[in-house]
Amino acid sequence: MGSLANDTALEINGSAFSLNPLDPEEFRRQGHLVIDFLADYYKNVHKHPVRSQVEPGYLKKILPESAPNQPESLETILDDITNHIVPGITHWMSPNYFAYFPASGSTAGFLGEMLSTGFNAVCFNWMASPAATELETIVTDWLGMLLALPKNFLFSGGGGGVLQGTTCEAILCTLTAARDKVLNKIGKDQIGRLVVYGSDQTHCALQKAAQIAGIHPANFRAVRTFKSDAFGLNPEELRKVVSADVVAGLIPLYLCPTVGTTSSTAVDQLPGLCSVAAEHEMWVHVDAAYAGSACTCPEFRHFIDGVEGAMSFSFNAHKWFFTNLDCCCLWVQEPQALVNALSTNPEYLRNKATESQKVVDYKDWQIALSRRFRAMKLWMVMRSYGVVNLRNFLRSHVKMAKLFEGLVLADERFEIVVPRNFAMVCFRFDPNKKDQTGPELHWVNELNRVLLEDVNSSGRLYMTHSVIGGGYVIRFAVGATLTEERHVRCAWKLLQEHAEALLGEHKRLQ
Amino acid sequence: MGSLANDTALEINGSAFSLNPLDPEEFRRQGHLVIDFLADYYKNVHKHPVRSQVEPGYLKKILPESAPNQPESLETILDDITNHIVPGITHWMSPNYFAYFPASGSTAGFLGEMLSTGFNAVCFNWMASPAATELETIVTDWLGMLLALPKNFLFSGGGGGVLQGTTCEAILCTLTAARDKVLNKIGKDQIGRLVVYGSDQTHCALQKAAQIAGIHPANFRAVRTFKSDAFGLNPEELRKVVSADVVAGLIPLYLCPTVGTTSSTAVDQLPGLCSVAAEHEMWVHVDAAYAGSACTCPEFRHFIDGVEGAMSFSFNAHKWFFTNLDCCCLWVQEPQALVNALSTNPEYLRNKATESQKVVDYKDWQIALSRRFRAMKLWMVMRSYGVVNLRNFLRSHVKMAKLFEGLVLADERFEIVVPRNFAMVCFRFDPNKKDQTGPELHWVNELNRVLLEDVNSSGRLYMTHSVIGGGYVIRFAVGATLTEERHVRCAWKLLQEHAEALLGEHKRLQ
Repeated sequence: MGSLANDTALEINGSAFSLNPLDPEEFRRQGHLVIDFLADYYKNVHKHPVRSQVEPGYLKKILPESAPNQPESLETILDDITNHIVPGITHWMSPNYFAYFPASGSTAGFLGEMLSTGFNAVCFNWMASPAATELETIVTDWLGMLLALPKNFLFSGGGGGVLQGTTCEAILCTLTAARDKVLNKIGKDQIGRLVVYGSDQTHCALQKAAQIAGIHPANFRAVRTFKSDAFGLNPEELRKVVSADVVAGLIPLYLCPTVGTTSSTAVDQLPGLCSVAAEHEMWVHVDAAYAGSACTCPEFRHFIDGVEGAMSFSFNAHKWFFTNLDCCCLWVQEPQALVNALSTNPEYLRNKATESQKVVDYKDWQIALSRRFRAMKLWMVMRSYGVVNLRNFLRSHVKMAKLFEGLVLADERFEIVVPRNFAMVCFRFDPNKKDQTGPELHWVNELNRVLLEDVNSSGRLYMTHSVIGGGYVIRFAVGATLTEERHVRCAWKLLQEHAEALLGEHKRLQ
Repeated sequence: MGSLANDTALEINGSAFSLNPLDPEEFRRQGHLVIDFLADYYKNVHKHPVRSQVEPGYLKKILPESAPNQPESLETILDDITNHIVPGITHWMSPNYFAYFPASGSTAGFLGEMLSTGFNAVCFNWMASPAATELETIVTDWLGMLLALPKNFLFSGGGGGVLQGTTCEAILCTLTAARDKVLNKIGKDQIGRLVVYGSDQTHCALQKAAQIAGIHPANFRAVRTFKSDAFGLNPEELRKVVSADVVAGLIPLYLCPTVGTTSSTAVDQLPGLCSVAAEHEMWVHVDAAYAGSACTCPEFRHFIDGVEGAMSFSFNAHKWFFTNLDCCCLWVQEPQALVNALSTNPEYLRNKATESQKVVDYKDWQIALSRRFRAMKLWMVMRSYGVVNLRNFLRSHVKMAKLFEGLVLADERFEIVVPRNFAMVCFRFDPNKKDQTGPELHWVNELNRVLLEDVNSSGRLYMTHSVIGGGYVIRFAVGATLTEERHVRCAWKLLQEHAEALLGEHKRLQ
């Protein structure tokens, strides 16, 4: 075996290839190559079309039909990545990326992921790697304090935080905890009576979680929102829907208000919503997936005022907190509710630390048993940049969004559709400025759809859309780490050019 | 803004600190530092206690109570990792790691994760990064062919594969698909009648998934296994339990046989079990989390004979296929069943590619919306080592386990508890060799418990335990990438020494 592990080396494309798949010196050599590859990628990422321009099925035509029998060198593989993979990537790290929400990776976030991937510990319980669990309890408390979360969401106050992959998981876990808490009282066969509430602006993660957790599909409520509330969920609308359910013999279970909706970064007003929920002993989970990051700045903290009325709160550090994918931070006031719903205790995982009850076993706070050492990257982000800089990075994005908003407002052919709360601007091209109903609305929607597709097809920037209140809107989300003011100005110029060209063509055709 | 992004640099501990958190040259400099840090870690990992020896709460005493306001240098952070984090890590990458199942990371697996973390694309649908989706369809077909899966599990045969985080997720997704397939026929209010089946050896993931998916807790069956079947699930035992449920008016829904159980790597016999399941139109999901890797070798393929009778199959490439955490490979015969249960279609994700129906949108094959570019690492593992070497790596682990088995068999004070199928040996210390019932069984169990704790406390190797058929067993799982024959021989020597010392002490006390 010794020969397999250390002694044999093989020549491929002129470079030594060790047959030990974790030979430290070969790891070092190859690791340096990939670091340089990625540093060069960041240096040149603005040159790639932001949205990939490949056609469905492009890669199948290029790659072999089966895995190679013999090893290939890293150099060969990196060439293939450059030639065949990079063109198929939509460059979320490009400074010209303004689509969806950002995935604001950073050097520290990347290095933290490297370290956790390098240690490769499977951190299901404390014993499997005490540092991973303990660092997670520490950084979630740090971050909770930055958000000025009520003390009972922190370990130091009897609650606690956990790092999951995505908001979808955070919602599913808390919904399962809420469900079992109620069913343990009223009987497991009553599941068909439980009702879950969001708004028509709530992320699709809520409906999916409800579906997975076995909530009857007829018992999912997307309460309507209105332009007069800036598409935030109105507590009185919620109250009407809940009351009707109660009259019908159903049981209100779970409410998921959003701080920073996906379509328009609307903010549901937590205090009023939590009051309605409290009347029915509902579990309130606050989804601040995108906007939670901004709420670490004192001037934005008011958006989560009222969170003390919620049972749980989550945001994605991988969206706008400089932490590479994936890292969703979830805090709960009552960890035992999660543990009751999600714990397992097989013999092969029994250990003294667990039995001492002095440790957290995070497997009981999430869906999966196995888990990565995610705390490492969040810790590195906070230490490498410091709170002062992290807040300034966020503010710089907000400032750039304000700049863009100003440019839109200054051009009378465009309009801002909803108020800007954070670093995302919702706008549309509306050169006629007529009353947008009937055929006119249809025409404006179509115009914006075509404009967006034109711009994205140029490869020079990438934005996405939504439909709010029946109107098509273009979303301009600032937050890619490499974005600077000049990219925002260029984006606006490009948009104007495309809009003018489109209008010219339209007039020519009339 | 330009000044925030590029121009300002700050001196920390003597090294330049750019205020752009993704400055390419600072990324390069810091990336090289971390690569060297990790290469040195692998070089010296055998020197650390394998199982961390820290006490609960150790880290809280060391780290500050809140996040730092000002940035700290990478050099300072790496020092802290060396001094405070590494002692709290249980070293899954140590050559002396024989606990649980392995997490067999490799250089290629690490580099693949680096690249995917570096691109930081959020690959929820095809459009969000076509290369990620297309590479995933290609590598899961490659791997499915290596496993000689029936053609209808591959994209090329109308099925398809997906990379999820863990088996827990794979089970939850397929169970949800199975559940909704049945409930769509018989009515959503019939959820209380559905029954899920595993054995008393099935991984706790099944029970947890059933719980999350809203299966009534009274309808979860852990069918008993017997020593005479080597703790594999016997189809006749299953039939009895299923028949009783049918008589009671319940509906058999989902069966999860295991190929390579966690406690003892027992193999449930698929053909007979699938026959029973077929009589009741149950969904069969084969969990080969650990042993699936070995089944890529022709000589082990027979362990999954009968998989053609299953609806889905999964194994963890992060366990024993040289792919760093996390990477669970799931194949399904009927992707549409997953999509029906898990799809969402919000306006903000609508795009031409999806509407063309020519692409896969993996968000509809899993719990979460956001997903990492996991295919990259699996592709790099297969290409960097080639099929021939991958199989030989696996065989070398099996050979080392056989070696250990031989050493145990040659010492009459020890016994092998169940037949070894793969690279894990279940044994116990039983110096008296008496009939193991009553007080004698208790004494032997206690003896092994103390022996295992002694050995693990030494820090020189790490094994874990299980209880099978009432008897405490020590599990010796070979598979850490750096393990060589000499480590196995040392482990055995250490075990013998501790066993002898324990026996000496026991005699002294009598």
